[in-house]
Amino acid sequence: MSEIFQTIALVGKYDSPEIGEALLRLADFLRDRGHDVLIARNTAEHIGSDVYPIAELAELGARADLAVVLGGDGTMLSITRMLAKDDIPLVGVNQGHLGFLTDVPVETMFESMTAILDGDYVAEQRLLLNTRIVRDGEDIYTACAFNDVVVSKASSGRLIDFEVFIDGDYVYRQRSDGLVIATPTGSTAYALSAGGPILHPTLEAFVLVPICAHTLSARPIAVNSRSDVELRLIEAGDARVYFDGQRHFDVQPGDRVLVSRAPKTIRLLHPKNYSYYFTLRHKLHWGTQL
Amino acid sequence: MSEIFQTIALVGKYDSPEIGEALLRLADFLRDRGHDVLIARNTAEHIGSDVYPIAELAELGARADLAVVLGGDGTMLSITRMLAKDDIPLVGVNQGHLGFLTDVPVETMFESMTAILDGDYVAEQRLLLNTRIVRDGEDIYTACAFNDVVVSKASSGRLIDFEVFIDGDYVYRQRSDGLVIATPTGSTAYALSAGGPILHPTLEAFVLVPICAHTLSARPIAVNSRSDVELRLIEAGDARVYFDGQRHFDVQPGDRVLVSRAPKTIRLLHPKNYSYYFTLRHKLHWGTQL
Amino acid sequence: MSEIFQTIALVGKYDSPEIGEALLRLADFLRDRGHDVLIARNTAEHIGSDVYPIAELAELGARADLAVVLGGDGTMLSITRMLAKDDIPLVGVNQGHLGFLTDVPVETMFESMTAILDGDYVAEQRLLLNTRIVRDGEDIYTACAFNDVVVSKASSGRLIDFEVFIDGDYVYRQRSDGLVIATPTGSTAYALSAGGPILHPTLEAFVLVPICAHTLSARPIAVNSRSDVELRLIEAGDARVYFDGQRHFDVQPGDRVLVSRAPKTIRLLHPKNYSYYFTLRHKLHWGTQL
Amino acid sequence: MSEIFQTIALVGKYDSPEIGEALLRLADFLRDRGHDVLIARNTAEHIGSDVYPIAELAELGARADLAVVLGGDGTMLSITRMLAKDDIPLVGVNQGHLGFLTDVPVETMFESMTAILDGDYVAEQRLLLNTRIVRDGEDIYTACAFNDVVVSKASSGRLIDFEVFIDGDYVYRQRSDGLVIATPTGSTAYALSAGGPILHPTLEAFVLVPICAHTLSARPIAVNSRSDVELRLIEAGDARVYFDGQRHFDVQPGDRVLVSRAPKTIRLLHPKNYSYYFTLRHKLHWGTQL
Repeated sequence: MSEIFQTIALVGKYDSPEIGEALLRLADFLRDRGHDVLIARNTAEHIGSDVYPIAELAELGARADLAVVLGGDGTMLSITRMLAKDDIPLVGVNQGHLGFLTDVPVETMFESMTAILDGDYVAEQRLLLNTRIVRDGEDIYTACAFNDVVVSKASSGRLIDFEVFIDGDYVYRQRSDGLVIATPTGSTAYALSAGGPILHPTLEAFVLVPICAHTLSARPIAVNSRSDVELRLIEAGDARVYFDGQRHFDVQPGDRVLVSRAPKTIRLLHPKNYSYYFTLRHKLHWGTQL
Repeated sequence: MSEIFQTIALVGKYDSPEIGEALLRLADFLRDRGHDVLIARNTAEHIGSDVYPIAELAELGARADLAVVLGGDGTMLSITRMLAKDDIPLVGVNQGHLGFLTDVPVETMFESMTAILDGDYVAEQRLLLNTRIVRDGEDIYTACAFNDVVVSKASSGRLIDFEVFIDGDYVYRQRSDGLVIATPTGSTAYALSAGGPILHPTLEAFVLVPICAHTLSARPIAVNSRSDVELRLIEAGDARVYFDGQRHFDVQPGDRVLVSRAPKTIRLLHPKNYSYYFTLRHKLHWGTQL
Repeated sequence: MSEIFQTIALVGKYDSPEIGEALLRLADFLRDRGHDVLIARNTAEHIGSDVYPIAELAELGARADLAVVLGGDGTMLSITRMLAKDDIPLVGVNQGHLGFLTDVPVETMFESMTAILDGDYVAEQRLLLNTRIVRDGEDIYTACAFNDVVVSKASSGRLIDFEVFIDGDYVYRQRSDGLVIATPTGSTAYALSAGGPILHPTLEAFVLVPICAHTLSARPIAVNSRSDVELRLIEAGDARVYFDGQRHFDVQPGDRVLVSRAPKTIRLLHPKNYSYYFTLRHKLHWGTQL
Repeated sequence: MSEIFQTIALVGKYDSPEIGEALLRLADFLRDRGHDVLIARNTAEHIGSDVYPIAELAELGARADLAVVLGGDGTMLSITRMLAKDDIPLVGVNQGHLGFLTDVPVETMFESMTAILDGDYVAEQRLLLNTRIVRDGEDIYTACAFNDVVVSKASSGRLIDFEVFIDGDYVYRQRSDGLVIATPTGSTAYALSAGGPILHPTLEAFVLVPICAHTLSARPIAVNSRSDVELRLIEAGDARVYFDGQRHFDVQPGDRVLVSRAPKTIRLLHPKNYSYYFTLRHKLHWGTQL
């Protein structure tokens, strides 16, 4: 027996009135099917609509049974982090460019949503990363990331120098431009540019990818998602920790960056014909000679 | 409560009489501790000893409670494949060079074995790969691999051309020198030379690493070990499939190479102070500034 | 004052009667412009024409002022090696796929040839590699290559082990699948798949690119084309030396492979609007957002 | 007939009084051999010596026949840029760690200097890069670099977006963390960490190495040192241009970064037994099994 998605929250790309028309069409479509529609406050304000009830982003997880995000992967990243504390599943609708997370094209969103709401979907669990930054024994910052935590040099142009420990076991000391710690979701984002492997979304793993390491034998390493990863800054220059490339925090020598799996996972829903490998081929421009 | 290892099988590096002295010292040591010692037939013949009972390699898994291998990682690979059908745990003793699989130095083997036999050990489960080669609908070859299955060009120097499917889903078509499909154990062997990532031994994953791919955007991809990987040869030149680099089988256009996780895993025992990351640092010449 | 190309030799892709129609149209066009046309024997036989004088491939360089090759880069490679001893310039015409060496599309060959014959062309000098294989102090094989000399394992699947010397100076010992020594022309061929850099055709350089090196810190190195590169085989397994991937010779431990710049260069003629970077972008699928 | 090095300038690592003892021993040694010794003002102040005549760094090139630098490669980089306008040759003396530029160990500096001063040396010409940054048609910054010019994102963590032109010919548009343009000297520095090839010092070439490019098929490309490289910033975020990692200038969208070979080269003198490949092996930890 499939889930009942009675109340559906709609969220649009931040600061993008142009998403309004599609979003309202989707809202009408869902209402006509008998669903209760909620619109995120920021989205409602940008598209200038007051037809549907409005809710704060932070409440959506508690008040709705399903969230549909219209925008690109960047929008999806930030919404996902905000909803991670609740168990609400997400669907991503793109406006033209197939995304890794926004795989439903706006052109076919009615068909796709119909199928999904009828229980005809594929669900995927995606991991998130929790980070604590510890200075002098105190937590000074915490953040959640869906793609990656990147510890890297900022504007000075100088290498950073740090040690990595996994489950308390010393791994290596590295001088480099930085280190990416990516989820399987993030493995196709910045980590890939830095030379990391692709991790299938079902893997219970993170990957540590050095950025321009000074040691030529440095290599990406994929570790168990149950592992605790710790990075201790030795020389930090003007090092920063970036979360999904959307937030950051400045760190200094002696700081410890503790990264581990978030207790909750994100549930993404896709139409039945969804193929991760199709998206991969399309996004990475692999030949599709088949 | 820890396991009882009453009967212990000893296996030495193939064709290496020089392993004899250490192996017999270990046999005497184990006998004096009250264990029953069995020696693999081939090993016994090479070291010219008839003091201890002899058993065929293929029987060791059924007759002994623990197997100790003296040699390098190459020896360990071939013995492991042979014992994979049974549930016998293995310990690897190296003669001077720390190995990924043979982590107990011969110099401290008495202390390490004492600890392990007293139940003071770390156990690791390692995956194996089963391969079936199918031609015209018939299985024409099957093999097991501990490190990797490599499909590659042989002597012609010509690219091979193949399609990859995972769980029946089309992944890509590739023209390359070949493809490595490696277990976490094999991720530090040939796959690493070909540009693959390191996979921690606890990962339930395989990694597909292209060798000199014609498509510049080809990247290693780590997939779930529950996945079925299929490679369909289009142009095969004189393509071969290699298993742990120790056995091979020639394939031709139209052949399908089906790779999946073996039902059994291998259990490796290590002394308590064993550190995977120490071995990694040491073998890959990463700085150990700590 | 520009060169006079009175006699023009035409060579088609080996064993490809389908090139005949375009080749004969080009022959007629050139004859009508007042040129003397020569057709390579093998080409003439395949296209079944006896209208034009025929010459052996080996004589073309001596008898013609310009050679036009119809086919792909593979054809161009083999023809080039054959004509390298003479000073005859070459033009490459492709049948549909832009090539690095065959940059004139068959559709516009009349315009391009008109311009070139009127002296309106860009000429490029391209380096070639001479190789001598020495066993027990004797030369046992010599060959010329336009793209690359590749020393690599053949079918055994075993690493080869060799030392490299440049101008008599020891560089490194390497265990790997092999080593590519590529000209700038060859830098966009196999060497690129193996991880090598692109060398602009005007560079007086070769690049040594390791293939799946056992040492993780191995890196491609570009050396002066005036340098003598020597590779001494230590363990050769079933090692082979490949020349442009089209010819090969088996080597054994103790053999020395001596590679140096050929005394002659190849002169390629391109239409004035020729852009090396355009070809690069197109062939390597770099975005062309401009 | 060899050069006469009558007046010798000595320069020590910036802000490093500990270099003083070795530097003064060298000064005494040179004086006793009959040379005129000049000490750079900054160095003299740090080591607290007033025995020898002092000269401004900027004058050294005009007043001395040879400059000896005591320090590491970083010191050598900055001194070299300062002396590039003159024709003064340089010798680099290291205090313990072999450098690419500082290859004479302090322990054997008397022997090495004796040989060099007797004309028994190897001279190498090394290229430098001149950079002009143009905004709205005006030059707003110029700088010289010995290792590399790096255009990269600064602290925002956002990709930069730019177009590259070589000799006016469009090469590609790239979204990446940045681009390294390195001399052969710089090819073993940051460019190597970013995945670039090694260029032998005799090559008349620069190498363009993308840093974490968004396009997976981006590759390093070595171009002729006579080429003009231009980078046009489209989206610059908080992009910066770094010169040898020691100076920088902030750029913005629309800015053009023009890089070309400096008219002067640097002349490095080495003892006769100098081997570039030895330094390479040593610094890159390549095995030296010979």
